[in-house]
Amino acid sequence: MDKIEVNIKFIKQLKQWIEQEASDEIVVILEEMYPQDIAEVIDKIDAESARYLMSLVEKEKVVKVFVEMEDKVREDFLSIYNPTEIAEEFIMKIDSDDAAFILNQLPNKIKDNVISSLTDIEYASQLLSLMSYDDYTAGSMMAVELISANINWTVAQCVEEIRMQAENVDVIYVVYVVDDMKRLVGLITLKNLILSSPSAKISDVLNKEVISVNTSDESEFIANIFKKYDLVTIPVIDVLGRLVGRITVDDVVDVIKEEADEDYQLMSGITSDVDSSDKVWTLSRARLPWLLIGLMGGIASSRFIEIYEDQLHIHPEMAFFMPLIAAMGGNAGVQSSAIVVQSLANNTLGTRNIFSKLLKEIRVALLNGVVCSGLILAYNLAFNDSTNLAYTVSISLISVIIFASLFGTVVPLLLNRIKIDPAIATGPFITTTNDLLGLAIYFSLAHVLYSL
Amino acid sequence: MDKIEVNIKFIKQLKQWIEQEASDEIVVILEEMYPQDIAEVIDKIDAESARYLMSLVEKEKVVKVFVEMEDKVREDFLSIYNPTEIAEEFIMKIDSDDAAFILNQLPNKIKDNVISSLTDIEYASQLLSLMSYDDYTAGSMMAVELISANINWTVAQCVEEIRMQAENVDVIYVVYVVDDMKRLVGLITLKNLILSSPSAKISDVLNKEVISVNTSDESEFIANIFKKYDLVTIPVIDVLGRLVGRITVDDVVDVIKEEADEDYQLMSGITSDVDSSDKVWTLSRARLPWLLIGLMGGIASSRFIEIYEDQLHIHPEMAFFMPLIAAMGGNAGVQSSAIVVQSLANNTLGTRNIFSKLLKEIRVALLNGVVCSGLILAYNLAFNDSTNLAYTVSISLISVIIFASLFGTVVPLLLNRIKIDPAIATGPFITTTNDLLGLAIYFSLAHVLYSL
Repeated sequence: MDKIEVNIKFIKQLKQWIEQEASDEIVVILEEMYPQDIAEVIDKIDAESARYLMSLVEKEKVVKVFVEMEDKVREDFLSIYNPTEIAEEFIMKIDSDDAAFILNQLPNKIKDNVISSLTDIEYASQLLSLMSYDDYTAGSMMAVELISANINWTVAQCVEEIRMQAENVDVIYVVYVVDDMKRLVGLITLKNLILSSPSAKISDVLNKEVISVNTSDESEFIANIFKKYDLVTIPVIDVLGRLVGRITVDDVVDVIKEEADEDYQLMSGITSDVDSSDKVWTLSRARLPWLLIGLMGGIASSRFIEIYEDQLHIHPEMAFFMPLIAAMGGNAGVQSSAIVVQSLANNTLGTRNIFSKLLKEIRVALLNGVVCSGLILAYNLAFNDSTNLAYTVSISLISVIIFASLFGTVVPLLLNRIKIDPAIATGPFITTTNDLLGLAIYFSLAHVLYSL
Repeated sequence: MDKIEVNIKFIKQLKQWIEQEASDEIVVILEEMYPQDIAEVIDKIDAESARYLMSLVEKEKVVKVFVEMEDKVREDFLSIYNPTEIAEEFIMKIDSDDAAFILNQLPNKIKDNVISSLTDIEYASQLLSLMSYDDYTAGSMMAVELISANINWTVAQCVEEIRMQAENVDVIYVVYVVDDMKRLVGLITLKNLILSSPSAKISDVLNKEVISVNTSDESEFIANIFKKYDLVTIPVIDVLGRLVGRITVDDVVDVIKEEADEDYQLMSGITSDVDSSDKVWTLSRARLPWLLIGLMGGIASSRFIEIYEDQLHIHPEMAFFMPLIAAMGGNAGVQSSAIVVQSLANNTLGTRNIFSKLLKEIRVALLNGVVCSGLILAYNLAFNDSTNLAYTVSISLISVIIFASLFGTVVPLLLNRIKIDPAIATGPFITTTNDLLGLAIYFSLAHVLYSL
């Protein structure tokens, strides 16, 4: 089995085969492919072709492809199955965390029918409890499949348990150790298990330094713990300290990526998770809110400039540097807010208080402001006739950079304090507000300087 | 050992103890702490206190704290040791990937002295070869510590190898299987090892479906493979297919986070990796380049507006909507480029060609442009006297949104094609160019409409 690169050429070839119903060629190539790669192909072809392709995938691989598909594609794919088939062919065969996630995406009626079709009542009730946890909490991320050993067992008993559970639990890195009340008391790595004598007592070989999370802990917090302690898996406990599940690093990698993507999109003025393959209407809807905020900002600044109409009439050169002032305010503000937002997310904000942070921000802004203002002053004195304009632009610029930087620092810090995601303060919001701020400073200053 | 939250209060208490040289209290608390938490504290206190604290950490924990420190703090910490001490106390005791990384950060002279102080010549030469790989490649990310088994061994021989190597290799998830030429031929998970009979032959129990990377593969490519195939560790092979190292998921998590941070910073106009605890000068230097680009853009637009000075003299109201047009061009452009950059990074760009992508972008832009232009037209007809201005603004706005969107889509795609990181096309670059583009459209159009 080789990594087959799912590129345009490969998909073209496959589409051709599908059209010709060349099942022999397709079966051969599908056998060579990893489930993840097949899922990638499925995501990129139409629903009918996808179903045909899935009918040619080997039985044992179908479920793995199913889990890896994009959500929308999977929904479409499931529409040809009845609830009993969905329960038996898919839900029973996949990990509980994936099962709970996929069930939660189904329409309510189908979801209920699928769950009541499950023949394993205990598993059905486990799934129901997984499905009830809030999104982005440990409870909603965890799987219930895990190997646990009682602290009173021997190593041999523990190995026997692994043998019995081997079919249910695909990947095992550690065995969690619990007491008679099912409370988590430690862990044993498979390495230690291999190196220990079969007759040794678990209580003698276990590692009590086990980091765990609670079912209600948030995904971002969990991701930070994985990153900090270099974990591969973490046990999840309930309020009584009982072991109820485990979270593996692959899910955490997804969380880290999703959160970074979200911050990036907020910064660029996109409100929901979209990518370039989404529908026109979806893309438009994700982008329109920020454009409308920009529009309102633009209208506000037009009202503001209108106040100075008479002055513009006499000194139209005042208009020359409006875009510069507005843009620089926006740029400086976005830089400041980005640094704060990222420091908050990475927990590298330092321990100083808000005032020393602002003081530092003022120093950075002053430094950059002096450089930029100096350059533009030199330019204007050299190439522009109006010294009034030259001084107005430079003094405005340095003021704008300082105010915009302070504003960009304070807003995300305040939002964070009142538990609102500071990332929404970046991008269009800061840019729009600082456009206005910049123009206000520029025109007020011009008004004063020109009337001297 | 409990997770101790390293918060302001805790650090304050610790600082007080350090001042009082209350070593008993400190030792007790340090014993309770994970190395990662101690490192977090060390990162946040001054160099002298850090050294005092490190002198109180248990011997076995010192090295672990050392690896987790921030780079700058570690450099400072190492300055009190001579090359032989650095070699024996630290480099010999940590994983080879960390050792190579830390050595590469030392000044050349010290680095050479440390390497020549290593008593294990074979290890020294391994480190030298690790250090020679380019940054952000598999070679520079991998560690040479791994367990490999010959395909002709039995399971029992493999377990014996694990026992012998247990001290060198901290964490083991899988055993890689090689042939007599050391070429990678498969892997065995520890789970399979436990479940197999000791007399079974490795060749009968191994899994041949092993995904590997080459030493020269780039970190972003590797991160995508880990993410796609849900891996925990990946073997690294050289050009001859020989097993030379392994990369673990914790390093990949760091890569994913770093890359996301970098894209975020580029988007917000920050050129190097900084956070809010960096020095004023560092922060200023990272932010100044983009501000200067914004400055040049501003000067260019001032020259452009100057052309229309006479017209502004007669119709100062033309200036009212300059900020709106410029801002909306910037916003729409940033949104487009962000979607492309993210789709490129996540490999979700779809298989369509560039023209169908542009066509789609035009449709999104048209939809959003019509909504925004319609709203501003209604506003202007209702509240502004000049119908000329109303039409100029609305027609400019829709043109600007379309052009900026196309520009925002094309530039990152082109950069990507010529192998330049498309992320640099986002943020200030797109904003500045689109400011100019917007003003050009606005004034040209106004010129035509007003002279009708």
